[in-house]
Amino acid sequence: MLAAAAKMAAVGITSPDGNLVLQVELDQFGAPYYTLDYKGKPLVEKSALGLKSDETSFIDGFRIVSTDTTTVDRTWQPVWGEYSEVRDHFKEMAVNLADKDDNRALTIRFRVFDDGLGFRYELPVQNGPNYLTVKDELTEFNFDGDHKLYCIPGDYDTDEYLWSETTFGALPEALAGYGKHTEAQRVEGTTIQTPMLLKTADGVYVNVHEAALDGYPAMLLDVDTKDYVMKSHLVPDRLGVSAYIELPFATPWRTLIVSDDARDILASQLVLNLNEPCKIEDTSWIKPMKFMGVWWEMFTGYEKTWAYSDDHLAKPGITDYTKLTPNGRHPANTENVKRYIDFAAAHGIDGVLVEGWNEGWEDWASYRKNRQFLFDKAYPDFDVAALRDYAKEKGVKLIMHHETSANAADYERQLDRAFQFMKDNNYDAVKTGYVGAIIPRSEHHTSQWMVDHARHVIERAADYQIMIDSHEAPRPTGLCRTYPNWLAQESARGGEFESMGGNPPSHTCILPFTRLKGGPMDYTPGLFETRMSYYGEGKDSQAGTTLARQLALYLTMPSPMQMACDLPENYERFPDAFRFIEEVPVDWADSKYLEAEPNRYITVARRDKHSDDWYVGAITDENARTAVIDLSFLPEGATYEATIYEDAPDADWKENPQAYRIRTVKVKPGQKLKQPLAPGGGAAIKIASRK
Amino acid sequence: MLAAAAKMAAVGITSPDGNLVLQVELDQFGAPYYTLDYKGKPLVEKSALGLKSDETSFIDGFRIVSTDTTTVDRTWQPVWGEYSEVRDHFKEMAVNLADKDDNRALTIRFRVFDDGLGFRYELPVQNGPNYLTVKDELTEFNFDGDHKLYCIPGDYDTDEYLWSETTFGALPEALAGYGKHTEAQRVEGTTIQTPMLLKTADGVYVNVHEAALDGYPAMLLDVDTKDYVMKSHLVPDRLGVSAYIELPFATPWRTLIVSDDARDILASQLVLNLNEPCKIEDTSWIKPMKFMGVWWEMFTGYEKTWAYSDDHLAKPGITDYTKLTPNGRHPANTENVKRYIDFAAAHGIDGVLVEGWNEGWEDWASYRKNRQFLFDKAYPDFDVAALRDYAKEKGVKLIMHHETSANAADYERQLDRAFQFMKDNNYDAVKTGYVGAIIPRSEHHTSQWMVDHARHVIERAADYQIMIDSHEAPRPTGLCRTYPNWLAQESARGGEFESMGGNPPSHTCILPFTRLKGGPMDYTPGLFETRMSYYGEGKDSQAGTTLARQLALYLTMPSPMQMACDLPENYERFPDAFRFIEEVPVDWADSKYLEAEPNRYITVARRDKHSDDWYVGAITDENARTAVIDLSFLPEGATYEATIYEDAPDADWKENPQAYRIRTVKVKPGQKLKQPLAPGGGAAIKIASRK
Repeated sequence: MLAAAAKMAAVGITSPDGNLVLQVELDQFGAPYYTLDYKGKPLVEKSALGLKSDETSFIDGFRIVSTDTTTVDRTWQPVWGEYSEVRDHFKEMAVNLADKDDNRALTIRFRVFDDGLGFRYELPVQNGPNYLTVKDELTEFNFDGDHKLYCIPGDYDTDEYLWSETTFGALPEALAGYGKHTEAQRVEGTTIQTPMLLKTADGVYVNVHEAALDGYPAMLLDVDTKDYVMKSHLVPDRLGVSAYIELPFATPWRTLIVSDDARDILASQLVLNLNEPCKIEDTSWIKPMKFMGVWWEMFTGYEKTWAYSDDHLAKPGITDYTKLTPNGRHPANTENVKRYIDFAAAHGIDGVLVEGWNEGWEDWASYRKNRQFLFDKAYPDFDVAALRDYAKEKGVKLIMHHETSANAADYERQLDRAFQFMKDNNYDAVKTGYVGAIIPRSEHHTSQWMVDHARHVIERAADYQIMIDSHEAPRPTGLCRTYPNWLAQESARGGEFESMGGNPPSHTCILPFTRLKGGPMDYTPGLFETRMSYYGEGKDSQAGTTLARQLALYLTMPSPMQMACDLPENYERFPDAFRFIEEVPVDWADSKYLEAEPNRYITVARRDKHSDDWYVGAITDENARTAVIDLSFLPEGATYEATIYEDAPDADWKENPQAYRIRTVKVKPGQKLKQPLAPGGGAAIKIASRK
Repeated sequence: MLAAAAKMAAVGITSPDGNLVLQVELDQFGAPYYTLDYKGKPLVEKSALGLKSDETSFIDGFRIVSTDTTTVDRTWQPVWGEYSEVRDHFKEMAVNLADKDDNRALTIRFRVFDDGLGFRYELPVQNGPNYLTVKDELTEFNFDGDHKLYCIPGDYDTDEYLWSETTFGALPEALAGYGKHTEAQRVEGTTIQTPMLLKTADGVYVNVHEAALDGYPAMLLDVDTKDYVMKSHLVPDRLGVSAYIELPFATPWRTLIVSDDARDILASQLVLNLNEPCKIEDTSWIKPMKFMGVWWEMFTGYEKTWAYSDDHLAKPGITDYTKLTPNGRHPANTENVKRYIDFAAAHGIDGVLVEGWNEGWEDWASYRKNRQFLFDKAYPDFDVAALRDYAKEKGVKLIMHHETSANAADYERQLDRAFQFMKDNNYDAVKTGYVGAIIPRSEHHTSQWMVDHARHVIERAADYQIMIDSHEAPRPTGLCRTYPNWLAQESARGGEFESMGGNPPSHTCILPFTRLKGGPMDYTPGLFETRMSYYGEGKDSQAGTTLARQLALYLTMPSPMQMACDLPENYERFPDAFRFIEEVPVDWADSKYLEAEPNRYITVARRDKHSDDWYVGAITDENARTAVIDLSFLPEGATYEATIYEDAPDADWKENPQAYRIRTVKVKPGQKLKQPLAPGGGAAIKIASRK
């Protein structure tokens, strides 16, 4: 009889275009599982579904009570992004499960898009326990093949890793190649993080991630390297609990972006589509921006510091900072900040970030302190009022910096006052940071409490009309749709690592396929001086890039809060190249992915949201390449002039990175531009239309 | 040579009156220890001193580098309290220790008063590590005898226990008699809490506690029941760490109040003297008060609830409270609160506390929720604005209630807004509560982070000119001297337990010797209806008191925030007795402890701070007693009229608790009033002077 019930229980839907076929069944124990076919072939084989809590489990003993199916086709307009309009088109099936006594009810909601699948667990109010201590989620992604994987190691506290291009079978070896991070919780075994990318032998690309992570911990993936199964691994707190939930509750969406065309993975808006619409009524104050920062000075040489003084290093406990001896190597001082403001004003850069402006940088023993930083107390050499007035006069926005040293509890304690201090001093945006081990000490960077913290901060920021660029926060899952004041996040190995051994050219050829599917990254492009003193060590570090490639990153790493990361003096050496950074928009009406292969190359064209100008960016890995830029996207009926910022013929990321050329050519719709890219190089093109 | 060094190392001081002799020595391993003699006899035998951290230890290998001694005799004026002026008179010795390489330095500072000893560890900046992860403190109190102990079980989360009167030898048995508290962390073994009281065979009383607990966890005591040694047991967080400290650092003072006269223990201001002076500049807004509360209604019958509705009990997750069905048993409604305001206004009661006014009481699964209560969102039947205006018109202050359900993290998140909401609505005082298991989940009620939380709340409250009455917070250690807006705390088994089986009469005969040495308790006296429905169970509960005794508690349990706990309708039944509550002050110019024996009886006289009137309170345990009230404290040159509120001759706490008499007699200075007290009874006397 059970078998009969299971047979009856098979239900399914397809994507609107019919390419994806989702099927859900119960096995003989009444346990739900799903399969996903793509273009007539199995892609995800029989994969478990379910949740386990201390109080009750939602694993088996179920029958399908009913299914609700619907088709949705709608569009929405993001406040900022790659497209001025996004289509949200899917077939939905809610599978309503209950046990025979109706004590446990579970709905699994599936949405199948042309570009993938999203599903989540919805736990309605039960006849049984309604407060659950979640210890495990059973969700599987059973890929029956030793596919190629692009991934970073499982870690509860950081995602700032280089990417492995490996396979299921070779994963243990790949993971063994990573060292154990300081203060971080590298997960033992073959666990990886999401977003991750997979490529089958058939050439099907699958991005595995989650959408709308809220009230729940982040999901890692335990990889069975023999059976090619990935299983949900919820980040636990230090008491071993993953989630404390109150019913009714819906988990985040588990997402698979699927295509046999790599460009579709880049173009997919699936994760955003699975997030809730914007919750902020008036969004007029949310303004995409470019910014510079008193920041890179501290990375490019051991001499400059965030700290105002060196005294504290020898003598902790000093609280009166006016009594400290200035170290003379503190760039966050009034005069130097004015220099940045002047440069930004002269070059149309909207904002200037200043790190190291506030008290507390002299030591870094944050886990042993209940308070490391004050967010309304400037160093003696940083004149808040004078800089507020100076920036205002120059039409430049200062950007606040809140390094919390991972003491999220203390940040919440100070939050209202910190935000009020910002508004009182004309700051509209803040870069937040969580370097170190988390306080509350029960938590990890990606445990449930910290996910909740991130949402609290973004909501409170919205109350104050403040925009956020968060570093070391839980990696994005599309929540920027719901809270568009969350302009950007770090949540990956960023450009700062160019000063710590460098990022290989391939690094920015994989991030758009993985990390960026959650939301924009504050990658900090715009590095013109590609050779620098190794951060903290004095030896040299070589960036994995040519200068021209850095311009292309403004297209391939789109973000509404985009940095020009280098020093004013370095930009002054290359004013013609800097012209591109001055002109490139950070908000787009449309985007066309022209060429793409993960870890290899990306070519993308985007149309400015506020003009008819198009911009093209093309990057390659450490191999030279000729990008073929199909200009079919240009509308007929106009003439076009392309200004091309490209690698010089002898350019090379390692040997000759600063060799670039700028040339202007007339181009036509439909034309196929052949654009050479140097090893580790790239090209950036502005195409202006003249009607 | 080591022995020679140790011999050289003996140093000591005495109390100003010479009765206490403190000696500090190093043993052959360079480990410091101390002894304390009282009136020529050893009281504390050789007892260890020291601290242990992961990074370095301060246990042995020391030499005495120097000692600094001084004598201090000064007075200070508390903002409120038992005395208008307090004498702070002690000899001090700072013993400066270092190891032979000068890598570790430790100062142990001793203050010897006529009424006891305080000492603390001071860790200056080291040549070695300056950020310490403290795992253990070695402090011992070695009482060489099987003395009598008055104590409660060791627990990291609650102190709401009945008191054991036991001995070292019988302690295991006494502790076995306690059940394991729900959600609390009863410490295994023979661990007890401070403040505790000890009485030697020689009749010497010793109160063991700590003063100025700040930036450190609370201290419990591990009791060696065979060798009669008590050792510091610092409350750890759930990671097993007791304190994360940054040097320079000073621990709280470890305190011994010592006397062979029990009355001296009650009169001692040693704990307050060891706290820092008031940090609040303008204290004019800090006003001692009496208050009533929409509170006891919920205890005295299962019918009344803090919750507005019963829906939530069946269906969690409701967030729109206007859609809930009112249960009709919710006393925190506008009309009922007005009734309390009217009564308070008519009887000169300053304030009305209202519990259950805000959303969130429908369930109590707080540990599984990131948010249980909002502190700026009232239930639909509680009209904030109307009650604000009504109370103001009537000259009564509403008192805010912040039950956090132990989610201290979320309370901090809301704190600024919660306090602003109070000020916007004319609230000047708040009762805080922390029922349940603590969030952050790494913490206990008395671990370091929560101690820090408590100080944060009191400091932030001072910023808003708000007074605090905290429940379920770390028990007081005299910090109310430094932050006199911290009017009262619960931190013991309070009057509410009269509705949960009752407090035996002896309970309030031990609290002043123990719990009250840290600071005032919001015990909630004034219970006139002593028989009530058992909280939550429907059966009857009999309070351990006569009615007259409840009046005496206003003297024997002094607090600047003193409740009249019973219902208006119960007071209206006994208007003549209620007259005493109307008249009794809550702030005192002077106090005279006339008779005292722990767990047995207390008789105390106090002079009103704002008049020449004296008030006397006398209580006994379950045995009848005749208090002898020596009126020598009355100044000559005036005539005095005493209004005596006393047990009727046939009164008895169990059989006839509400039998009382009120009589007025003329009294004279020097006269010895013999005042009969019924079993479980008491007497309260107002002595008005007529010049």
